[in-house]
Amino acid sequence: MTTGPALGVCYYPEHWPEARWAEDAAAMREFGIRYVRIGEFAWGRMEPEPGIHDWSWLDRAIRTLAEAGLDIVLGTPTASPPKWLVDRHPDILPHDEKGHVRGFGSRRHYTASSDTYWRESARIVESMAARYGDHPKVVGWQIDNEFGDNDSILSYGPEDIAGFRRWLRGRYQTPEALNEAWSNVFWSMEVSSFDDVGAPVGTVGEANPSARLDYRRYFSDRFAEYCAMQAAIIRRLSPGRFVTHNFMSLFHDFDHFKMAESLDFASWDSYPLGKVESFPFSDDERIRWARTSHPDMSALHHDLFRGMAGNSFWVMEQQPGPVNWGKWNPAPAPGMVRLWSWEAFAHGAETVSYFRWRQFGVAQEQMHSGLHRPDGQISPGGREARRVAQEIADFCALPASQQAKVAIVFDYEASWILKIQPQGQDFNYSVLVHNWYEALRRCGVDIDFVAPGASLAGYALVIVPTLPHVSPAALAAFQAFDGIILFGPRSGSKTRHYAIPENQPPGPLQELIALKVAEVSSLRPGLAFGLSGAVSGTGGRWIETIETALAPAAVDDAGEPVLVRDGRRLYLGAWIEGETLRRFARSLLVEAGLDVIDLPDHIRLRRRGDLVFAFNYGTEPWPIPAAGPALRIGAAEIPPRDLACWTDQLS
Amino acid sequence: MTTGPALGVCYYPEHWPEARWAEDAAAMREFGIRYVRIGEFAWGRMEPEPGIHDWSWLDRAIRTLAEAGLDIVLGTPTASPPKWLVDRHPDILPHDEKGHVRGFGSRRHYTASSDTYWRESARIVESMAARYGDHPKVVGWQIDNEFGDNDSILSYGPEDIAGFRRWLRGRYQTPEALNEAWSNVFWSMEVSSFDDVGAPVGTVGEANPSARLDYRRYFSDRFAEYCAMQAAIIRRLSPGRFVTHNFMSLFHDFDHFKMAESLDFASWDSYPLGKVESFPFSDDERIRWARTSHPDMSALHHDLFRGMAGNSFWVMEQQPGPVNWGKWNPAPAPGMVRLWSWEAFAHGAETVSYFRWRQFGVAQEQMHSGLHRPDGQISPGGREARRVAQEIADFCALPASQQAKVAIVFDYEASWILKIQPQGQDFNYSVLVHNWYEALRRCGVDIDFVAPGASLAGYALVIVPTLPHVSPAALAAFQAFDGIILFGPRSGSKTRHYAIPENQPPGPLQELIALKVAEVSSLRPGLAFGLSGAVSGTGGRWIETIETALAPAAVDDAGEPVLVRDGRRLYLGAWIEGETLRRFARSLLVEAGLDVIDLPDHIRLRRRGDLVFAFNYGTEPWPIPAAGPALRIGAAEIPPRDLACWTDQLS
Amino acid sequence: MTTGPALGVCYYPEHWPEARWAEDAAAMREFGIRYVRIGEFAWGRMEPEPGIHDWSWLDRAIRTLAEAGLDIVLGTPTASPPKWLVDRHPDILPHDEKGHVRGFGSRRHYTASSDTYWRESARIVESMAARYGDHPKVVGWQIDNEFGDNDSILSYGPEDIAGFRRWLRGRYQTPEALNEAWSNVFWSMEVSSFDDVGAPVGTVGEANPSARLDYRRYFSDRFAEYCAMQAAIIRRLSPGRFVTHNFMSLFHDFDHFKMAESLDFASWDSYPLGKVESFPFSDDERIRWARTSHPDMSALHHDLFRGMAGNSFWVMEQQPGPVNWGKWNPAPAPGMVRLWSWEAFAHGAETVSYFRWRQFGVAQEQMHSGLHRPDGQISPGGREARRVAQEIADFCALPASQQAKVAIVFDYEASWILKIQPQGQDFNYSVLVHNWYEALRRCGVDIDFVAPGASLAGYALVIVPTLPHVSPAALAAFQAFDGIILFGPRSGSKTRHYAIPENQPPGPLQELIALKVAEVSSLRPGLAFGLSGAVSGTGGRWIETIETALAPAAVDDAGEPVLVRDGRRLYLGAWIEGETLRRFARSLLVEAGLDVIDLPDHIRLRRRGDLVFAFNYGTEPWPIPAAGPALRIGAAEIPPRDLACWTDQLS
Repeated sequence: MTTGPALGVCYYPEHWPEARWAEDAAAMREFGIRYVRIGEFAWGRMEPEPGIHDWSWLDRAIRTLAEAGLDIVLGTPTASPPKWLVDRHPDILPHDEKGHVRGFGSRRHYTASSDTYWRESARIVESMAARYGDHPKVVGWQIDNEFGDNDSILSYGPEDIAGFRRWLRGRYQTPEALNEAWSNVFWSMEVSSFDDVGAPVGTVGEANPSARLDYRRYFSDRFAEYCAMQAAIIRRLSPGRFVTHNFMSLFHDFDHFKMAESLDFASWDSYPLGKVESFPFSDDERIRWARTSHPDMSALHHDLFRGMAGNSFWVMEQQPGPVNWGKWNPAPAPGMVRLWSWEAFAHGAETVSYFRWRQFGVAQEQMHSGLHRPDGQISPGGREARRVAQEIADFCALPASQQAKVAIVFDYEASWILKIQPQGQDFNYSVLVHNWYEALRRCGVDIDFVAPGASLAGYALVIVPTLPHVSPAALAAFQAFDGIILFGPRSGSKTRHYAIPENQPPGPLQELIALKVAEVSSLRPGLAFGLSGAVSGTGGRWIETIETALAPAAVDDAGEPVLVRDGRRLYLGAWIEGETLRRFARSLLVEAGLDVIDLPDHIRLRRRGDLVFAFNYGTEPWPIPAAGPALRIGAAEIPPRDLACWTDQLS
Repeated sequence: MTTGPALGVCYYPEHWPEARWAEDAAAMREFGIRYVRIGEFAWGRMEPEPGIHDWSWLDRAIRTLAEAGLDIVLGTPTASPPKWLVDRHPDILPHDEKGHVRGFGSRRHYTASSDTYWRESARIVESMAARYGDHPKVVGWQIDNEFGDNDSILSYGPEDIAGFRRWLRGRYQTPEALNEAWSNVFWSMEVSSFDDVGAPVGTVGEANPSARLDYRRYFSDRFAEYCAMQAAIIRRLSPGRFVTHNFMSLFHDFDHFKMAESLDFASWDSYPLGKVESFPFSDDERIRWARTSHPDMSALHHDLFRGMAGNSFWVMEQQPGPVNWGKWNPAPAPGMVRLWSWEAFAHGAETVSYFRWRQFGVAQEQMHSGLHRPDGQISPGGREARRVAQEIADFCALPASQQAKVAIVFDYEASWILKIQPQGQDFNYSVLVHNWYEALRRCGVDIDFVAPGASLAGYALVIVPTLPHVSPAALAAFQAFDGIILFGPRSGSKTRHYAIPENQPPGPLQELIALKVAEVSSLRPGLAFGLSGAVSGTGGRWIETIETALAPAAVDDAGEPVLVRDGRRLYLGAWIEGETLRRFARSLLVEAGLDVIDLPDHIRLRRRGDLVFAFNYGTEPWPIPAAGPALRIGAAEIPPRDLACWTDQLS
Repeated sequence: MTTGPALGVCYYPEHWPEARWAEDAAAMREFGIRYVRIGEFAWGRMEPEPGIHDWSWLDRAIRTLAEAGLDIVLGTPTASPPKWLVDRHPDILPHDEKGHVRGFGSRRHYTASSDTYWRESARIVESMAARYGDHPKVVGWQIDNEFGDNDSILSYGPEDIAGFRRWLRGRYQTPEALNEAWSNVFWSMEVSSFDDVGAPVGTVGEANPSARLDYRRYFSDRFAEYCAMQAAIIRRLSPGRFVTHNFMSLFHDFDHFKMAESLDFASWDSYPLGKVESFPFSDDERIRWARTSHPDMSALHHDLFRGMAGNSFWVMEQQPGPVNWGKWNPAPAPGMVRLWSWEAFAHGAETVSYFRWRQFGVAQEQMHSGLHRPDGQISPGGREARRVAQEIADFCALPASQQAKVAIVFDYEASWILKIQPQGQDFNYSVLVHNWYEALRRCGVDIDFVAPGASLAGYALVIVPTLPHVSPAALAAFQAFDGIILFGPRSGSKTRHYAIPENQPPGPLQELIALKVAEVSSLRPGLAFGLSGAVSGTGGRWIETIETALAPAAVDDAGEPVLVRDGRRLYLGAWIEGETLRRFARSLLVEAGLDVIDLPDHIRLRRRGDLVFAFNYGTEPWPIPAAGPALRIGAAEIPPRDLACWTDQLS
């Protein structure tokens, strides 16, 4: 099976004079664009007064775009409830940790706890889907927009507390069971009714971590159900169309795997540059990658979101130039918009959709570039996108992404657990996963991400950077796996109620590899330890004291075990990174029988079917280390910020 | 015309036993002081109970001071409403961004949005002016005290929102016009009534920048009108007396030019040392200038406030020693209190008034030094002030400040615009203006500050460090100017409604110089670019991609234009500083036909009429580079932290 | 008289299955533990419903522990009021500075201002003491738990303001007296009734420092009285038992001396490692001492709390391994748990009680280690504690701590005064005291801490690091002292109402040494000054200009006096630290006729009766510099992280 490649663009007819629509639509087609996403954020124009819909402008917009031959992706407008709705139903507004209302005037001003908002959302989505669901050029739907943007998952108002209590009642049945699960005997925290439970914030000391974990689970569930509610309406009224949502990168506040169950495939919004500032890179790295992004930043997310649903994904919003929301917003280095686009395709994207057709030089995002400038001229990024459009014309389709040989187990709950009680303040889940991903990709291999509990069949090597809570399903999947599997520090260190397992960490993983973690030590920057054996070099941030009868595969300075293995199962009780991690990852790949290509830190490879892509994020040309490849894009020496694609001779 | 010099002092009779007043007054006269400022903050003693005035103590204080021969400046006491007023009218209190009341217990606990407070202010000012307005020794008035201190311009309470709505109604007439001006179609932000508008804070994401700009304009207008209201009462009841206000340095939260329209001249409060910590200097500079201040810190503000009204100004509060409000509060280096005093005169001050006569060793400002210590002995700064008093006795008058040859266009709205959406977080208006000021003064020239729209006639060189919004009046002034004028980055980048001009930046300035800014890039610290041509060296923080048919005057590393000129008009699309900026500024001065004297970084010159002053902020003596000047103060070699004054042979 | 040594442990029967109690109790005895602390935090189990007590479980727990031969310390459970109590009486909850309620869900959710909470506390304590007060194995009581933890002394709600007003009325009688004491004439802050007074927060500018000081005094008094209220109940119902409270380190928010008046002796909770991150050490020091703590961190607090009451103290909670509340939580270096335990005994502890018997792997403190792991196995720290238990068996008793020859005057009000108006932001009381303590102990001497006003008889050298407010009692004690006494900078700089003395600082100390501080200068990091004379080297942070007719003992770069002495009384007007301070401290000790032993920075000595202890915090062995000591513990060469104890040949 082969799919894609196609280009899309985000467009807001309501932002532009109607006279301009047809011209824009024609220009999109001429540009090489297939999909146009519209509609999200336009609730105020769809329903200017309570219950009074005005579809006329949207009818005309859709007709104009359709007549130009564009396929339309409709966004539901629930990310921006209009003023009249907020005024009529102030209970839809979210609250911050101090109880202050987060009000109207931007977007995402609702809490998923609000039953009112569910009802109102269902109403507008139903109206919209009823009107456009069977339009022949409406080919798909995006639900809402970037769930969680601006820290909008968790809320702390009366509706939230009421919803949380209902959820707890469903989960625990009795207050006694809740007290037991949360160990409320500690500090006299026991409740005698679910109505005694509040939001786990605003306490004098730290709130109960079990409560905090459940609070996060509640909102994660609630948003997944809210998305599924919209998806069900659409599937009923707009059969045959795809349903997706545009996720964000480096964002873990809800379980994306769970939400993706109601989607046909995941989409995500790729803004490589701004994330270089928000990710905890060193300043040196921030400077180095300021105008290209780090070579694993987008790639990791492509692989993560490809694994959500359907072995495919869209980039729903692709950065086309400088954005407006970073501390600094440099222009991408020349070539990068094209490189990022092709990188998405290489990792399995079906469509890359640019945000946005034309920079809207007013309101909040006026400094966010588009494929065109405010004056209508094409932007530097627009020129690169047009080149991509020309290049993909040479590919009728791209082969489907085959399963990789290496998998990383990714878990949203792991991220929550480590945030609630980090124990060492730089034990960061995003960094830990990024480090493993980078170390492996520096060896030239492709990577899949899988949820805990998913089948691991077909992989030669599985990395579990950490998995504090190992569910029965996850354990079963690990037990069924016969390749090499490595568990990182803190794996199996928590029960589902956020407690230390009674048999010490790694809890149920002791069934796979017989060891106990006796004590853990978190280390401030500047404190390090040496390692020798199968892992050699230095570590920092975290080290565990391991008790085991197994012979250690690596030891620390004091000769104590740090890496323990039992056959093909390994447990690493320390934080390692950089070259120490890369060498270790390489040795695991070699042991797993995989071909390793040692890449410079600015080069990455990725295969899609029989195609091999190479991306050069650096400032020097890179000669492809293959004799006479059958090039489809580029040359045998890849210029800086450029790429090549060739047919794998071996495939 | 010649004016000044005179000394003043701030005095609070209510703080001291009445028995001490006559002794203090006599000592002031003996000291050489002419003006004494009293009254501000004494509302509680003037009106101890609602409607019950007690003028007796103030009558006696004024009589005592007058009898000693002192001229009296009366401050209206509206910076500190008494407790009973706050209790009766809690609506006068300001609110912070979260909606918390900012309460009684210090000063400035009112919002200018409160109609009640206007009424109460008018009442006390009218009573005070009626009683003392025609006193022969009451020679002038200060309105309120340091508008904006402690972040007290913007407020977010019900009175503020009501006032903002009224202001919007006056400005836009209809909600439709407001929606259009603010581009509220974005994110469904449209309102159907002015009553739908709230304060642009507390939103989930960023609030609309157009709304934020208007919110600032509203408060700026409101405070200017509040000041004008008081001024009108005083002018009616105290004819012939001057009216001023004591502004602060490095503070831009309202349009000082607009407020100054109701004043005879501007005053300002000069605290050179504390600002070294609050200005974004490097730590090295903070250490270097810790006990002298930076040589441009006070000078820049002298020049700025001289330009407000009347080509004159007062320093109403001059730092006399260590203060209490800095993170650290070092004692000024010996000599600096005298140097700062003379520097003020050199820049055109009519009077330098020290804060305060005697340190008040109680309450909030107990660690703020005065001319005398708490025990009544003269302080180190007091001794320097007394020397200044002796020195000015040799000058019956100082010549008026002549117009400089170089002007910097300064705009308070520019500061707001850049704060609302900085796009690069270190694009700081104060720093940008300071950098230009320093670069020019290192070349030995005098500088005027002018508001946008003011006539530029008579200048040889005009620098517009940036001016995002170019009003029609500003454009007309630029068009009428025939000298060399340089526009810095982001000039012309916004319309009056905070939008990008439809013809791209620099918007209306394209009428002066034909170029378009196609794209902008903000750069984190550590990222730099090279420049060559009329500007050579390195830049950082900000660079623009310029499209023009004109030949570039300077280009970046990639050969793209950075500096463009059309005749005597130049546009610089980059942030430059340090030596790169100094060399460029020097070249502009030379081209403008001005004499350049290359000064060390610790030496500054300033002319007033035919007098030339030189100030040595450094630790080494500096020989005056003029053959045998006719010295009025000092010697041909200026010792560290000292000054010289001579008559310009050429004048 | 000789006392101790004994070991204790903290235990929570309510956390464990009842079946496990007897086994645990037997194991404690076998371990060598004498005391077991129970009960604090168990209010919810003691009184599960309003007025319905359930003592049955506690009866059984006490019986089980007693039958195993353990002595029981009962904690009153007032640190954790149960949910029903909070719901019935929301007025017990504290409020933060913004007025937000600090709610249920952790601990310390009450304000001592609440009369309701006093009543409810008295009720539960009375019930508990009535039931267990005469139990033969209940040997002592701990009142509440860690007063002030999580910033819980000051509160800003209606109850607090009401209580503050009552306290003010008692202190000042009339509003006029209050206005005078607080100098409310400044900024029109005068009140006409005590009901006009609010909490000194939430003001636009800084609140009145006199009010802020009184606000702190009020809460300090209130908590001391609250503690005394509980103590009185216990003494009535449980005669003959000791009463103590477990204080915290580096915490000054109430006057511990005043609270200790109702206690038999002070206890404190010793967590050496976490404090290395919270104390303002440099990063280099934080790295160096990360796994041992700084060698003066615990020792200083041992000496401080020994001085509170009864010349004895307990460590009620001793860190047994990694904790959970630091930014990072490293495991102690091997040997440190034993070293810390012996260090406590060396400094006069009667009992060292470990927190806790077994790690409770659930709820907030699940990552806090214990003597045993969650799975019941002994922990690394547990093994060290067991070794201590074996070692102390060789000592039937330890001699009483004799009075030291050197005293440091410690004042909680000094800490408040310096926080309210630091004037230089790094003028930190904890650091100043620590620096003196370290400098003196590097010279091998023992140190006592005394409250201002306490007798200084018997000391050869007294250091007053600073004492801003010198009370008449303190002055009298200084006047009566005939040894060498040194006053540090800012001593005598404030009256009791937080004002500068009318005769300039050092105020009343001028009766002891004739000088005036004319001016003070605080200096940012990077600014330094040189010193020569009796103090030689460099200083920073703070320097005073001193006027005196006395010959200076040390001068600064400008030759101005920095150290002044009159006979055996010295005043130092500068901040010095490091080697400069150590040399100066050494010279004072020599002058005082004390034996000085120059110790490396990782070695400390401490005498108790005729025993000498030496502790090695470093990584190299240290040979004891005494010929053939009569060793009781250890060897003549002390290994790293180890100790020795020998009998002093001279005693």
